[in-house]
Amino acid sequence: MSAIEIPKPDPRILARRAEILAGLAALVPPTSLITEEDERRAYETDALTAYRRVPLAVVLPETTEQVSRVLTFLNREGVKVVARGAGTSLAGGAIPSEDAVVLGVSKMSRILDVDTANRTIRVEAGVTNLGVSGAVSHLGFFYAPDPSSQLACTIAGNIAMNSGGAHCLKYGVTTNNVLGVKMVLIDGTIVELGGAHLDAAGYDLLGLIVGSEGQLGVVTEATLRILPLAEGARPMLMGFQSAEDAGACVAAIIASGIIPVAIEYMDRPAIKVCEAFAHAGYPLDVEALLIIEVEGSEAEIEDLIGRITTIAADYNPSGLRISQSEAESAAIWKGRKSAFGAMGRLADYICMDGTIPTGQLSAVLTGIARICEGYGLRVSNIFHAGDGNLHPLVLFNANDPAEQEKAERCGEDILKLCVELGGCLTGEHGVGIEKRDLMTYQFNTIDLDQQMRVKTALDPQWLLNPHKVFPLAGRPV
Amino acid sequence: MSAIEIPKPDPRILARRAEILAGLAALVPPTSLITEEDERRAYETDALTAYRRVPLAVVLPETTEQVSRVLTFLNREGVKVVARGAGTSLAGGAIPSEDAVVLGVSKMSRILDVDTANRTIRVEAGVTNLGVSGAVSHLGFFYAPDPSSQLACTIAGNIAMNSGGAHCLKYGVTTNNVLGVKMVLIDGTIVELGGAHLDAAGYDLLGLIVGSEGQLGVVTEATLRILPLAEGARPMLMGFQSAEDAGACVAAIIASGIIPVAIEYMDRPAIKVCEAFAHAGYPLDVEALLIIEVEGSEAEIEDLIGRITTIAADYNPSGLRISQSEAESAAIWKGRKSAFGAMGRLADYICMDGTIPTGQLSAVLTGIARICEGYGLRVSNIFHAGDGNLHPLVLFNANDPAEQEKAERCGEDILKLCVELGGCLTGEHGVGIEKRDLMTYQFNTIDLDQQMRVKTALDPQWLLNPHKVFPLAGRPV
Repeated sequence: MSAIEIPKPDPRILARRAEILAGLAALVPPTSLITEEDERRAYETDALTAYRRVPLAVVLPETTEQVSRVLTFLNREGVKVVARGAGTSLAGGAIPSEDAVVLGVSKMSRILDVDTANRTIRVEAGVTNLGVSGAVSHLGFFYAPDPSSQLACTIAGNIAMNSGGAHCLKYGVTTNNVLGVKMVLIDGTIVELGGAHLDAAGYDLLGLIVGSEGQLGVVTEATLRILPLAEGARPMLMGFQSAEDAGACVAAIIASGIIPVAIEYMDRPAIKVCEAFAHAGYPLDVEALLIIEVEGSEAEIEDLIGRITTIAADYNPSGLRISQSEAESAAIWKGRKSAFGAMGRLADYICMDGTIPTGQLSAVLTGIARICEGYGLRVSNIFHAGDGNLHPLVLFNANDPAEQEKAERCGEDILKLCVELGGCLTGEHGVGIEKRDLMTYQFNTIDLDQQMRVKTALDPQWLLNPHKVFPLAGRPV
Repeated sequence: MSAIEIPKPDPRILARRAEILAGLAALVPPTSLITEEDERRAYETDALTAYRRVPLAVVLPETTEQVSRVLTFLNREGVKVVARGAGTSLAGGAIPSEDAVVLGVSKMSRILDVDTANRTIRVEAGVTNLGVSGAVSHLGFFYAPDPSSQLACTIAGNIAMNSGGAHCLKYGVTTNNVLGVKMVLIDGTIVELGGAHLDAAGYDLLGLIVGSEGQLGVVTEATLRILPLAEGARPMLMGFQSAEDAGACVAAIIASGIIPVAIEYMDRPAIKVCEAFAHAGYPLDVEALLIIEVEGSEAEIEDLIGRITTIAADYNPSGLRISQSEAESAAIWKGRKSAFGAMGRLADYICMDGTIPTGQLSAVLTGIARICEGYGLRVSNIFHAGDGNLHPLVLFNANDPAEQEKAERCGEDILKLCVELGGCLTGEHGVGIEKRDLMTYQFNTIDLDQQMRVKTALDPQWLLNPHKVFPLAGRPV
C-alpha cells in the first residue's frame, strides 16, 4: 500500500528539536526519554511495516501525572503526539511522523486492583492483554477480548482500536468489557470516565473514547470487566461442499439465538495448508470448514451441540467431528491459530478486516471469489464467521510491484463490497492510516464532519495521532 | 423538588412568537403544528409533574426531512427545541421552557423493515417500546429493553435516556440493543450512525448519542437488535431474614457468573403491600424477598435453578418456592409489577434511581436505612438488584411541605451515598432536570467541561433541550 501519504514533517518543529527535547527532559526521568536515532528507530513503525518514519523523540512516562505534564508541554509547543501501546497495529495506528513525539505506555504496567465480588480489575494501560487474564486466572476469572497478538498487545492499544478476537462472538469486543478509564487530554487535564457500575449519568464519553484510535486523549488506567472461567468448552468440526452452504449455516445458527463462544471459517486452500502445518485432522474433501466452540456445564455443552447439529443438517454438512478430549481440542485450535503463519509460508498476502451482517455471509463469499477472479488473484478466507468479521487473505507475489498494486486494489474492492452489503471497513483492526482514505466509501462528508467536530472539540490543534482515521483532504486543521 | 430552577423565558423570543409560528407553518402540514394554548398545555410537563411550563409551540413532523427543515429554521432563529417521545420521563427530560418549541416524534411511528436473518428491525423513532416487540413476536422474536412504561414510551425516548428494565440484567440496556440511528442535528443536517453490523469505523458517535437526553440531535429512525424468544422462563421466590443476607446472596450469584433474566428485590413493607394487592403468595415472615427468573430450555432452567439454590444456601434463605405453572409465574410477576402502584395507595413517595456495584448491595441497603432513620422517614426498597439499579421509595406526606422538602433532601443523600460507594446518580431514568444539580457530586468541573465541549461542538448555541443534564452555573453558553 505504498500509495498512502504520510505528510512531510513541519520544518519549524524540526528546527526546534533541541529545545523540545530539553523541555521533555525536565518533565520525565532520564530513563523515560529516548533521543538517540538508533533507539528512536525502534518506534518508527508497527505491524504495518510497509510504512515507517523515525519520530522526533520517544517518551515513556511512568505515571499519569508525567503523561499530563508531557501533554501540557507538547500542546503548548504545538508538537504532534502519537500514543503507542506495543506497536502491534495492523492498520498503522502507531506509525509516527518525523515531527511527532511517540508517547509509549510500556512503563505503566501495574495491576492496581482486583475485585472478584464486582468482577472488575483496574490496571495501568501498559499491561498486556494476556497479562490481565494472567492476573486473575488463579481466582477462576479471565478477560474476554482476545486479539491474536494478546501476548504482546496492551490494554491501551486494545482500547484505542476497540480490539476483538475469537471469544468476542459471545462476550463482545473491548467496548463491551471496559467499565472505566483514566485518561489525559491534550491540554494535560486528567479525566475519569465510567467506573465499576452499569451506565453513568451524562454523556457516554467512555464509549466515544473506546475505538477513537488515540486521537482524543491518552488512556493511562482502565477498569475492566472480568468473567468467571467456564466449567468446560468443546470445539466441533463441520465440513461443507460450498461456501454458500457454510455461510448459510452460520447465519442460521446465529438467527436461532444460539451464541457459541466462537465460529471460525476456513476455505479449502486454508484447510489444506493448515492441516499440512498442524496435523489437526481437518477434513480435506470439503470446500469450507467451520470450527464451532461451545462452553458451559456438561449438560449445556451437550444441549448446544445437539441444537447446532440439528440446524446444520439442512446445509449438507460432512465430516462432523466433536472433540472427545483436551488433546483433540488443542489440535483443532492449533490448526486455526497457526493459519496466518501457515499461509505466509505459501505466499505473500494482505489481510483485510471487513465486517458484514451475518445474513450476508453467503453473498460476501460469492462476491469475494468473483472480485479475486477478476484480478486473477488467489484468495483464502479464514475468519471469525459468527460475528461477520471477515479476514480474507489476498495472495500475491511481493517481488512483483504490479501484482502488489493489483492486490491492494483487489483488497479495496473487497472492503467496498462489505460496505455495500451493509457492513463496514473494519471489524477489529481499526482504520489507522491503512483505511483512512477508504473512509469516504463508508461515510459521506456530513458524517465525517460530525466525527471531526468531536476531534476538534477535544483536540483543537489536531495534535493527537493526526494523519490517521480521516482522509487528509477536508480536515478543519 | 420545588427547588429546581427552570430559567425564565427570553423576552426577545416571546416578542417574535407570531413570526416564529409563521415560519414553522411554512415547513410542516397544518395538522403538524399546534399553536393554541389549551392544546399546547398538553405538552407542558412529563412524568415529573411537579414542574410545568407551556411551550411556545408544538410541531409534530411526519418525516425526517420535515424535522430537518424545522431544526434548520429554529437554529437560524436561535429558538430552543425540546424533543419529546411520549412524555413519560420521570426525570423531567421532556419538560419545555416557555420560549422553547416542543418537537414531538409521535407522527413518525412506522415499522420500516424486519430482518430476522440478521436479527434487526428498523423503525421510526415514534414507535412505542412494546410496539417493537409486537411487530416481531409472531416471528418468535422480541426487543429486550423493557421499561415499566413500555406500553407508552417511544424508542426516541428510550434512546435519549438509555432506558433499562427488568430484562436488562441479561440483555443489556438500550445502548446494547441499538445498532444504528438516523438523526438530525440542530443545523438540519441528517446523519446516519451505525448499522446492522458489529462495530464501525471511526468514532463511536452512536454510543455517544444513546443517553444524551435529546441534547445532541433528534433521532428519527433506529435500527434495533431483536432477539429470539426463549424456549421457556421460570421465576423463583427466595426470602431472607435480613437485607444484608439478601444483598450478599445477589452479589454471590452475580459473582458466580450466572446471569438470570431478572433479580428483583423487595423489602418487608413492599412485600406486605404487594401481597395484599396482588395475592401473589409472597412469604410474609421475611425481611427481604428476591424474585429470580431464569430462562432457556428445560434442561438449562433446571441447571440454573439448581446452581442458584446451592449458592443461596450460604445466606439463610427461607420460603424458597419455584414456580410450577404459567399461572403461578404470572401471579409472581403481577405482584412485582404492581409494586409502585400499590405503594402509591399507601403513601406519597419519591422514587430514586441510583446504581451501585453489585458487591455493595449490603452496604447501600444498610446506608439507606440509616439515612431514612435520620430524617424520620419510612423507606421501601423495590428494585432491579441483579444489576445494582436501586429504586428506593422515600415515603412522605405530600400535603406537608416541610416533610416534602425533608424527603427531597433524604433522596439526595441516598444518591450521594450511591456515588460514594462507586455507583452513580441514575441507572435508567436519566438526569433531566431532576438530577441536574446533583451532577457535581458525580463529576468534577473538568469532567463536566469535557462533556459540555461535546455539546458545544454539535450544538454551538445550546438550543437542544437546554436546562437539562448540566448544572446551570458553569455553562459555556
